[in-house]
Amino acid sequence: MLERLKERVYEANMLLHEHNLVVLTWGNVSELDAETGIMAIKPSGVSYASLTSDMMVLIDVKSGRKLEGKLNPSSDTATHCELYRAFEGIGGITHTHSRWATVFAQAGRGIPPLGTTHADYFHGEIPCTREMTAEEIAGDYEAETGKVIAETLSRRVLTDTPLATPAALVRSHGPFTWGKNAAEAVHNAVVLEEIAFMAWQNLLLDSDISPMQKELMDRHFFRKHGENAYYGQ
Amino acid sequence: MLERLKERVYEANMLLHEHNLVVLTWGNVSELDAETGIMAIKPSGVSYASLTSDMMVLIDVKSGRKLEGKLNPSSDTATHCELYRAFEGIGGITHTHSRWATVFAQAGRGIPPLGTTHADYFHGEIPCTREMTAEEIAGDYEAETGKVIAETLSRRVLTDTPLATPAALVRSHGPFTWGKNAAEAVHNAVVLEEIAFMAWQNLLLDSDISPMQKELMDRHFFRKHGENAYYGQ
Amino acid sequence: MLERLKERVYEANMLLHEHNLVVLTWGNVSELDAETGIMAIKPSGVSYASLTSDMMVLIDVKSGRKLEGKLNPSSDTATHCELYRAFEGIGGITHTHSRWATVFAQAGRGIPPLGTTHADYFHGEIPCTREMTAEEIAGDYEAETGKVIAETLSRRVLTDTPLATPAALVRSHGPFTWGKNAAEAVHNAVVLEEIAFMAWQNLLLDSDISPMQKELMDRHFFRKHGENAYYGQ
Amino acid sequence: MLERLKERVYEANMLLHEHNLVVLTWGNVSELDAETGIMAIKPSGVSYASLTSDMMVLIDVKSGRKLEGKLNPSSDTATHCELYRAFEGIGGITHTHSRWATVFAQAGRGIPPLGTTHADYFHGEIPCTREMTAEEIAGDYEAETGKVIAETLSRRVLTDTPLATPAALVRSHGPFTWGKNAAEAVHNAVVLEEIAFMAWQNLLLDSDISPMQKELMDRHFFRKHGENAYYGQ
Repeated sequence: MLERLKERVYEANMLLHEHNLVVLTWGNVSELDAETGIMAIKPSGVSYASLTSDMMVLIDVKSGRKLEGKLNPSSDTATHCELYRAFEGIGGITHTHSRWATVFAQAGRGIPPLGTTHADYFHGEIPCTREMTAEEIAGDYEAETGKVIAETLSRRVLTDTPLATPAALVRSHGPFTWGKNAAEAVHNAVVLEEIAFMAWQNLLLDSDISPMQKELMDRHFFRKHGENAYYGQ
Repeated sequence: MLERLKERVYEANMLLHEHNLVVLTWGNVSELDAETGIMAIKPSGVSYASLTSDMMVLIDVKSGRKLEGKLNPSSDTATHCELYRAFEGIGGITHTHSRWATVFAQAGRGIPPLGTTHADYFHGEIPCTREMTAEEIAGDYEAETGKVIAETLSRRVLTDTPLATPAALVRSHGPFTWGKNAAEAVHNAVVLEEIAFMAWQNLLLDSDISPMQKELMDRHFFRKHGENAYYGQ
Repeated sequence: MLERLKERVYEANMLLHEHNLVVLTWGNVSELDAETGIMAIKPSGVSYASLTSDMMVLIDVKSGRKLEGKLNPSSDTATHCELYRAFEGIGGITHTHSRWATVFAQAGRGIPPLGTTHADYFHGEIPCTREMTAEEIAGDYEAETGKVIAETLSRRVLTDTPLATPAALVRSHGPFTWGKNAAEAVHNAVVLEEIAFMAWQNLLLDSDISPMQKELMDRHFFRKHGENAYYGQ
Repeated sequence: MLERLKERVYEANMLLHEHNLVVLTWGNVSELDAETGIMAIKPSGVSYASLTSDMMVLIDVKSGRKLEGKLNPSSDTATHCELYRAFEGIGGITHTHSRWATVFAQAGRGIPPLGTTHADYFHGEIPCTREMTAEEIAGDYEAETGKVIAETLSRRVLTDTPLATPAALVRSHGPFTWGKNAAEAVHNAVVLEEIAFMAWQNLLLDSDISPMQKELMDRHFFRKHGENAYYGQ
């Protein structure tokens, strides 16, 4: 069932690994089949060297139930489901513990927009979630993680689509990124790590550094996104 | 004698090298055969390029005496023996001078738990040992190093097994990690380097950063360890 | 038309990638054919893995018009044209978002000359441009970017040729480098990233660090450049 | 003439490159033939990809004159000659602009002994030279560079042989290392870069960090060096 979806999700997981965003088994990618409401996701704790496309697990996003797969799905499965339910129009999600984005998450700080590399992909600060409550942690923890991401994104002021800020940092944990599909979510995970690296260096020298000019941020974001985009082919 | 033990220890040593935790010859791994009380360990000062499994040296852990092997064992052999004697249930040990863990050791600071990457593997701070006395340094130095690690671990408050804090930093020296066997000890050395990297970056921006929430730390540690674990297959 | 020019520009673009100065598609190189006033430049948004020499786009530098090529040229094409018009004697240009040079650009700081690595290639500080005005950003933005670089370089005090300071940082954006041809521009991009890395580390420890001695800077610059050079073959 | 010397020097130069201590052409290694007083050294400005052993240049160390070789020797040749003349017992020298050691040189700071990685190879601080005078820079600059290194080493207090502190940082320039032969000099260049990396991180968190305990430094240095060494085979 949904063999091509599983194939794409497998390849996106491998790509995450090839971009050095994953240490050991600390990462996962899913993609949603919009028609059926089914997502494919990496199995839990399987090394990248032994991963194959038919190990991908199929999950009904609405109920969170496993539909197909011999292996347990990623322990972050419930987080992915929450995000697909909350964010209309997204079709792929990644989670990693990539070094620099995780450093921001551990600091409990969002990533301020400091340059055009950021503005080419993210319209404004990449937010960090609030601390979760003891009840959220003790309860359905992974689903609550998705809910706190959605809550954080709902406070966006600049733009009204989650695809304009396709990443969030879960406090004391690490980044989630998303996109129209799994490949775009992985692409955004690569970008996120670069801008996290650079922004962290800037903060080390000046922890009160101001964000970039609003005009420049808008120019770069909208030359790549939306109706008047003119970057690329 | 114990050919498969030597083979496993050889492979674990090579894995340490492949994970870029070792520069030149600065690292070693041992594994204990619980039945016989014999450990296999890397020979001293041999380059990884020329290492073979039959170079591994067999040591009687109780007496510290060499049982088999043409080469001198690692100069840290006595430290390994002390740890096997002190920590019930461990079966593998690594020592490296991996960059970020060694930076912490040189600073004389433990690694505070700042995120779930840490909490997935280590229950609480990874401690740094006290300065050794002039007598300890002038005496049976390598054995004393093992004793000061055991002394440091004996101050654990959160959990009572050395496998819940499978690493320590030897002050002004570098990290030791352990596990149920050599492969797990190497795995923990990889994790240690990642969390040392991230924690150091956090300290550079805020040297008084608070540890993560206790509830979150517990949730992550116990979803991977102990009776109620649900991570992986 | 100009097949060898396109070949050289293709190779220079690949070299930029091999030197790890480019993430995803964030970089481009051009070279000018001085006789015809035509430059070849990388197409916009094409991945390095799928790039071929016949994809290079030919542009008439004076008018900025495309002369040949199925694909859209780099979105930074107008910036390259401005620089060829402004800087006599240069024949190659690169633009990247290389990590450390971009960190300086995001900080809005020039790179002070702190050592002979810098002085071997750049005679004095590598400048960072001023903030662009809202009008410049809203207008012919990419051409204005080139103009603000030229304006910044016109304030050089030490030496009167742009080849003596073959790089500038565009504020909140990233570096441009140039040289006699595309290969030399790439070479300077490699050097720039090294010295940016080292200078940033120096600033982190001492944000008011003094530049190197003027005598030493001159000695190193002029032993590699100009009439009395004696470095190399 | 001296074909095996040239072969060894070629291999040591390539090893420097393989250890990622050299960017572009910024590095060189020489070895002295003690019997004849002739050294072989890398030619100036030749890329590592095109280097061959018969390109090595032979120099009479006493006079500094070229004895054999079609190419110009390294521009640092006079510095190497000075060091062979000043430091009895050394037989190999390297010079690089390796990142972290160069950062110390640019800061004008020596590398304090902070851990056993340092103490295993260097007995005490690795010194940084004083600023050179305008006369020294304007004069026989490369020879003066060697003299200022020798002057700096002559202030050693702990041990009386240059092989106990086989490195120095030339202020605002970069490191030189040495050893009994070219291979050992390269080995020490690798070690230097590791300890420079770690010490710099330590200084970023605590710029007044104290050196390690003298007892521990001595124990580690002398377990690898001198009559009572017991490390290795």
